[in-house]
Amino acid sequence: MNGIDTLRPQPKIRRINLDTGRENVVVISRRSRALRPEIFRGFSRVELRRNGKVMLATLIITDDDALVGPDDLGLSEPAFRRFAEPVGSVVTIAPAVSPESLDAVRAKIMGQTFSAVDIGAIVDDLTHYRYSDMEIAAFLISSASFMTNDELIALVGAMARAGTQLKWSNPIIVDKHCIGGIPGNRTSMIVVPIVAAHGLTIPKTSSRAITSPAGTADTMEVLARVDVSVEEMKAVVAACRGCLVWGGHVNLSPADDILISVERPLGLDTREQMVASIISKKLAAGSTHLLIDLPVGPAAKLANTMDAMRLRKLFEFVGDHFGISVEVVVTDGSQPIGNGIGPVLESRDVMAVLANDPAAPADLREKSLRLAAHLLEYDPKLRGGSGYARARELLDSGAALRQMQKMIDAQGPPTCCTDLGNLTFDVTATSDGFVSGIDCLQLNRLARTAGAPIDKGAGIKLFKKIGDRVEQGEPLYRIYAFDQSEHDLAAAGTRTNTAYTIGNEPANREATS
Amino acid sequence: MNGIDTLRPQPKIRRINLDTGRENVVVISRRSRALRPEIFRGFSRVELRRNGKVMLATLIITDDDALVGPDDLGLSEPAFRRFAEPVGSVVTIAPAVSPESLDAVRAKIMGQTFSAVDIGAIVDDLTHYRYSDMEIAAFLISSASFMTNDELIALVGAMARAGTQLKWSNPIIVDKHCIGGIPGNRTSMIVVPIVAAHGLTIPKTSSRAITSPAGTADTMEVLARVDVSVEEMKAVVAACRGCLVWGGHVNLSPADDILISVERPLGLDTREQMVASIISKKLAAGSTHLLIDLPVGPAAKLANTMDAMRLRKLFEFVGDHFGISVEVVVTDGSQPIGNGIGPVLESRDVMAVLANDPAAPADLREKSLRLAAHLLEYDPKLRGGSGYARARELLDSGAALRQMQKMIDAQGPPTCCTDLGNLTFDVTATSDGFVSGIDCLQLNRLARTAGAPIDKGAGIKLFKKIGDRVEQGEPLYRIYAFDQSEHDLAAAGTRTNTAYTIGNEPANREATS
Repeated sequence: MNGIDTLRPQPKIRRINLDTGRENVVVISRRSRALRPEIFRGFSRVELRRNGKVMLATLIITDDDALVGPDDLGLSEPAFRRFAEPVGSVVTIAPAVSPESLDAVRAKIMGQTFSAVDIGAIVDDLTHYRYSDMEIAAFLISSASFMTNDELIALVGAMARAGTQLKWSNPIIVDKHCIGGIPGNRTSMIVVPIVAAHGLTIPKTSSRAITSPAGTADTMEVLARVDVSVEEMKAVVAACRGCLVWGGHVNLSPADDILISVERPLGLDTREQMVASIISKKLAAGSTHLLIDLPVGPAAKLANTMDAMRLRKLFEFVGDHFGISVEVVVTDGSQPIGNGIGPVLESRDVMAVLANDPAAPADLREKSLRLAAHLLEYDPKLRGGSGYARARELLDSGAALRQMQKMIDAQGPPTCCTDLGNLTFDVTATSDGFVSGIDCLQLNRLARTAGAPIDKGAGIKLFKKIGDRVEQGEPLYRIYAFDQSEHDLAAAGTRTNTAYTIGNEPANREATS
Repeated sequence: MNGIDTLRPQPKIRRINLDTGRENVVVISRRSRALRPEIFRGFSRVELRRNGKVMLATLIITDDDALVGPDDLGLSEPAFRRFAEPVGSVVTIAPAVSPESLDAVRAKIMGQTFSAVDIGAIVDDLTHYRYSDMEIAAFLISSASFMTNDELIALVGAMARAGTQLKWSNPIIVDKHCIGGIPGNRTSMIVVPIVAAHGLTIPKTSSRAITSPAGTADTMEVLARVDVSVEEMKAVVAACRGCLVWGGHVNLSPADDILISVERPLGLDTREQMVASIISKKLAAGSTHLLIDLPVGPAAKLANTMDAMRLRKLFEFVGDHFGISVEVVVTDGSQPIGNGIGPVLESRDVMAVLANDPAAPADLREKSLRLAAHLLEYDPKLRGGSGYARARELLDSGAALRQMQKMIDAQGPPTCCTDLGNLTFDVTATSDGFVSGIDCLQLNRLARTAGAPIDKGAGIKLFKKIGDRVEQGEPLYRIYAFDQSEHDLAAAGTRTNTAYTIGNEPANREATS
């Protein structure tokens, strides 16, 4: 039916200043002759064609000629960018035929399994923005309750091939990844300089925060530019053996970015999707040796070591299939790592550890050394068991700090404001005792309410950790903000829940690492 | 967190001429102080509050102050209508907390079952537009592969209670319903006047076409007004014992309308959802005796009698639970019923049957009489087995036609154009032989391409049915259109697929009814 639809009058492209995110949206006049929009009765999907290009989009109807006239077709900003045709060009519009790969999704919903070909087609359609939100949800949910090993392997492979694939001349490319959820915890920014200083190649791409107060990319941005292209990233790695850049411009596993944008609002979080997300990105990044950090704790993504063990096995299975050496470490996720929460405060913790400042947070130093030790032992020349001593040597000698400064110089100076928020508020202990618990989720919420990560210098500085003795009235932590209403909101939030539990006994911390 | 968000600056409502259908959409400036939209990175969900009202909506960001300024909040037309607060009023906006009932959906996805309380909460959230498209998809897909009987019963009950619930003084309220898919097939418009003429109460609500060239409401609209309120409907039924109105204004089972709007684009079609949709509407309509027509045929919704039998059992099970007398008849769905496809042509078939016109389509007359016979036997005073004779008597005597005219007068005159399309095109047989098959899906597509149901007089008139002898060059059917480009498109469509198969032998029709 597509060919014959060119008989209809063809509208001209207009650009509409609407940021519709991942979804392509087009706005059409109710009086359009190109398509009779009333048959859609609201949201539906259409197909635009021009110069051999095809784009699927969701339709919104308007009666306002000032927005879109009857002979025009309004493209939202993302749709305009992706279609990449000039304003005023003539396009063909027709009701969209659903992507064929949806047949496989429907079959999966009814109990069948995906073939590798099915999954390849689905990932291709996802990557080309051919799935609507509800179709992405259909795919995710069809696979959420059950995925075979073959399906998972096919998914990882297809996702890894869908975007940029980095190639390195070095036979050993090491990487580390934490599944997240723990405030602070900026170990990558210490591990990467240690490992690069030793001589291994570690081209680290990181994400920005989506629901947390800071991602590694947000924190590194306080120190250096992170939104670099693939070419710039390669130059930094050639010069420094490592980098700490934002993955967004590098476009590794674009299908993953799309899946995550639907998983998050739906609150879907399956082991298979987590493994597919991480391993596909690392395959695309050209990693050969990967260390995965699984924090376990009451408010962490993994609540107990049994869950962590199941996830570890899945990482190992998929890693083995693709010939990546995967090592999984289970770590203590019962409280924040380091003292700062929010980009500026976290970057100060990191630099204090690298500078061997006596006031640097010991937990962040220790965890980073332990992770670096694992990575260093991927070096065939290093004697088994000597990784930790080597990591400490590189940190204590200042070699890691010099390596970090070299990377910062190579990536370029930061462009954002690096001051700490000038509005502060201390939360104090309401009784004498010992800190027996810290609610990571609440700290994340409070730090975001205070303005992090948008305001780099907003966040929380912790004065007490689990096991510490406190006296009534003694500060537990300080909130930093720039905006008065955000400061007030965060302060109000602490009155609902301070995130701290004070007990009578020194806490008996569960040591999972 | 909601209470403290009132500390933020509050935006003023602006109305944006965007018809976003079922979805509530709000447009916010990227420079808004009320909510920092950049944290959302595109589409996400927000919560508006004013005067105790809460509305969830999907967010679109703009940089265009002409559309929405930094102190404003743009509400799309459906959102503005549903929120029902004046332009310029101040609202509180905050990131939306997902409806709590989504926890149950996530649990169902992971293999648990819904409790009746879960399903009640989900249906309440659906009905109040608290679910986004992807969340509706999540609910549907979580239930698509497996639903327990208890879940189905809970769903039907919750859906039936969610909207208008009609009450009638008469102890017997009869109704009929066809699961659809067969072109023509306007039996309701003949059955209702017969049954009402006999003396039973049959308050029929029908739907408009969504993907077909005509629904019963579209066809009845050629003869009378159909968009009546609940009060008007009751008055018509009081006067005539029956009616043929559009269900849209009556708001029976609003949750069903919302579920269908996501099922259709996803191509989901499960037995459980079909039964829930139909029985919930009939419960809300106050029906006590229900006849269900299940057409079976190669291009029908049911491909074989085994599928029809499974569906029949499910209808009976649910009907019994709620104390509705449900009778299911399996009918021949191998080809269109009647000669017309499209509102005007179908209405002419119906009136020809009611007027005992010798040229009236015999299949439509016969099927209507058989369905009416079943319904009439719900009358305790009618002797078992005499339903068919009574139905024929009411039709042949003109009593049914008089009843129809009474209903038309009571509902009021039609407001739409009732002419047939002036652009016609005949499709002829390419060889001598017998019609051995008619592709209902292709006929539906061709009739819609020609303009039906938007142009009431567009459509297709069939000259030949299965088993008829044809000679080469003899017309098989005629296409009617008003618009030259639509005429040309439909004509081009017939060259791809005429929808007719001509064989050498008289067809051996499978008689499923």
